[in-house]
Amino acid sequence: MKMQFWSVGKVHEAYAKTGIEEFTKRLNNYFPADWLIINPPKNAGTLSEAELKKAEAVTILSQLQKDDHLVLLDERGKNLSSPELAQWIQQRANTGTKRIIFLIGGAFGVDERVSQRADMVWSLSRLVFPHMLVRLILAEQVYRACTILRNEKYHHS
Amino acid sequence: MKMQFWSVGKVHEAYAKTGIEEFTKRLNNYFPADWLIINPPKNAGTLSEAELKKAEAVTILSQLQKDDHLVLLDERGKNLSSPELAQWIQQRANTGTKRIIFLIGGAFGVDERVSQRADMVWSLSRLVFPHMLVRLILAEQVYRACTILRNEKYHHS
Repeated sequence: MKMQFWSVGKVHEAYAKTGIEEFTKRLNNYFPADWLIINPPKNAGTLSEAELKKAEAVTILSQLQKDDHLVLLDERGKNLSSPELAQWIQQRANTGTKRIIFLIGGAFGVDERVSQRADMVWSLSRLVFPHMLVRLILAEQVYRACTILRNEKYHHS
Repeated sequence: MKMQFWSVGKVHEAYAKTGIEEFTKRLNNYFPADWLIINPPKNAGTLSEAELKKAEAVTILSQLQKDDHLVLLDERGKNLSSPELAQWIQQRANTGTKRIIFLIGGAFGVDERVSQRADMVWSLSRLVFPHMLVRLILAEQVYRACTILRNEKYHHS
């Protein structure tokens, strides 16, 4: 099973980059994992919110494969504990999922064509985080979930 | 009103340090804010969990002033949204609080003498984060709360 983190926006900012890369590297000991940074369209500044989300949706949907399991990060989603995330990942592996895509939308969220395609909507917290911090938390949590599944010390240290 | 972040443990790790320092610096435009890193006792390795928490509690309680408003970060605490955190900070300022202490406990949490002294127990998420990430999230959220109170763009960008 592969894990992909997709994020609409800019390259990782310096304050988050080291941590994102470190946890993604560690995660690769469990599942092949990498990031796809989806640049907003070049004319983003001339588009309305709705037009921007539509344009981003075209890019996102064109990259998705039919069997991909799409997890949309959204504050209105389901709250999971770290062990529940671990269990959920285990279930995906057990049911033969080939690729999990964790998607962080753009500045205004995602177009409804994307949210309708999502297999799960996941909220990290009731708090609103900046995108860079969402990336860092996401990489750390998915890595942590893998250590929970293997009953390793990290989660309890 | 002053804001202090107290954290039992080591100095900020590199992957979190830049962000912690940046958000703390920005927060200082609203309230004087700084960090106190409380080192575990030198003989920590020879102590039981309970003894370690007791020793850390002595240090924590000795640093607290009578009027300090103590917020304990703990996953079993209350979940707040970012606007609720902002409201809560506003209430503290309105009621004449001199100093808010946000406390991140040690590896095994805090002794009950500390949790009994806490005025609020706050959970950032149902997820368990590493201490360094808790520090980064905490600094960012308290800064964000201040921008919400001033109706500034940051929270909506």
